Amino acid sequence: MVLISDIIKHKTKMEIPITFLGTSQAIPTKTRNHTAILLQYKNENILIDCGEGTQRQFRIAKINPCKLTRILITHWHGDHVLGLPGLFQTLALNKYKKTLHIYGPKKTKKFIQEITKIFLPISRLKIKVHEVEGKFLKTPDFEISALPLKHGCPCNGYVFKEKQKLRIDKNKLIKLKIKDKTKIAQLAKGKTIKINKKIIKPSQLTYKQKSRKIAFILDTKICSNINKLAKDSELLILEATYSKKESALAKKYGHLSTEQAAQIAKKAKAKQLILTHISQRYEYKEKSLLKEAKKIFPNTRIAEDFMKVEV
Amino acid sequence: MVLISDIIKHKTKMEIPITFLGTSQAIPTKTRNHTAILLQYKNENILIDCGEGTQRQFRIAKINPCKLTRILITHWHGDHVLGLPGLFQTLALNKYKKTLHIYGPKKTKKFIQEITKIFLPISRLKIKVHEVEGKFLKTPDFEISALPLKHGCPCNGYVFKEKQKLRIDKNKLIKLKIKDKTKIAQLAKGKTIKINKKIIKPSQLTYKQKSRKIAFILDTKICSNINKLAKDSELLILEATYSKKESALAKKYGHLSTEQAAQIAKKAKAKQLILTHISQRYEYKEKSLLKEAKKIFPNTRIAEDFMKVEV
Repeated sequence: MVLISDIIKHKTKMEIPITFLGTSQAIPTKTRNHTAILLQYKNENILIDCGEGTQRQFRIAKINPCKLTRILITHWHGDHVLGLPGLFQTLALNKYKKTLHIYGPKKTKKFIQEITKIFLPISRLKIKVHEVEGKFLKTPDFEISALPLKHGCPCNGYVFKEKQKLRIDKNKLIKLKIKDKTKIAQLAKGKTIKINKKIIKPSQLTYKQKSRKIAFILDTKICSNINKLAKDSELLILEATYSKKESALAKKYGHLSTEQAAQIAKKAKAKQLILTHISQRYEYKEKSLLKEAKKIFPNTRIAEDFMKVEV
Repeated sequence: MVLISDIIKHKTKMEIPITFLGTSQAIPTKTRNHTAILLQYKNENILIDCGEGTQRQFRIAKINPCKLTRILITHWHGDHVLGLPGLFQTLALNKYKKTLHIYGPKKTKKFIQEITKIFLPISRLKIKVHEVEGKFLKTPDFEISALPLKHGCPCNGYVFKEKQKLRIDKNKLIKLKIKDKTKIAQLAKGKTIKINKKIIKPSQLTYKQKSRKIAFILDTKICSNINKLAKDSELLILEATYSKKESALAKKYGHLSTEQAAQIAKKAKAKQLILTHISQRYEYKEKSLLKEAKKIFPNTRIAEDFMKVEV
């Protein structure tokens, strides 16, 4: 689809901001709150996981939580979900009017029912819960899919993928001196136009915009679906709960080590790797984790609370 | 009871540290987390309320939450209790071995059952729940009592009160040149002793130690029990959700204004007043709240997160 609005307003390609609202493992530290990541795309504000204290992280990041449109839950371990009741209460207090869509693995409906029954003036908040696997959301702009991971309880990894779009090359418009908005609109609709007796086909002016893929794998041990989720991602966000030295613990407790995470990124031909879900044992020692990963996959970063990256 | 150990080790009167772990009202701010206050007394570490994020506040304050012995819940509104599931999980992860006593108003048992059923590997944590009113805990050192307040749901105010003790006056011991530990121990047991043919009765050396009272009133509108709880307190911790100007809102939503809080402290002849449960609307404007209260009750402070006072 060619976007007329993009041509007329001369928009450039939009960045996709990802804000890390929490980056700790099970126990939070002075600098790291429990897991929560915000992906913003046009009018969509999608939260991936919602650990305890996430509503306050929104406040500190100066992002209004009422902008939220969807929440993707990876799994129902406390450190990934205990911020939900408080967030729901705050949305209700702030008269959130939209329907809040919550996606998660099996049993998500049961959990949401239980926590709202205890804590929420639920009648004041419209929540729609979806238990998902595979491609579960398609919009004109993007799609989101889920694949199960291995973590001792139902657990999803998620992929956000832009739809590939045909866009009009603004430089070519300028070169051909096409300024007439009606003509541009016709081109945008795929129609051939005539300017100064010259026939111009839409294919002469359009190009395929690169489709960006962002993968979220926040709690898992090694399994085949990791590679499917990670493959060719522009940004790969991976848990790395343990250092290379402690990879035996990673295996024992259903997690990844820094080394494993970097190998996944390399195999998947990801563009950039961000490690998160950092254990309290590495507080102020994150540089050594980074070093281990960079040896295998140089374009690696360690997530920090309130770090914002644009894809 | 006269404490021999105090005489022999020449201890002075112990301060009671109170640490404010969270001081916000319903919605947390950058500087204020949800309500939680820690009272430490000898081997007791008593938490009053446990809003979302309290376990992280413990970490930031560098206090090990495994030291906790008891939790007093004022009421079951989310901003006072949503930190419980995460705190329980962290205690379980850290192999907390004691029995954790939780006290609260009516329905506390039901709430604890429900939240532990959803989130906790409960078998790994021993919790004993008590629904309380009146004097519910007596130890050789202190007693704690609860009185119901008015807040639209079962809600308790709490009073911690030291027991009044007889202590030996060390200066008199020195004056009378009594150094013999066996003799001092006899005095401590209430026995008359003989030194250099001189008869000395315990009453000649003992005095009544002042009994300290600390009151916690964290969510309520004006009601008669407030005065009973606050009366003659050494430290009175009162909610002050609204400014004087917005006292109509305080009445409407079941809270106190700064002015009402200060009047309560004055009437109760409290020594010191600390206002907490500060609404987000007064972020960075707390000085004006303080001014309003100080006009009526000069020895007032506004609580801040991590503020520690010693009574």
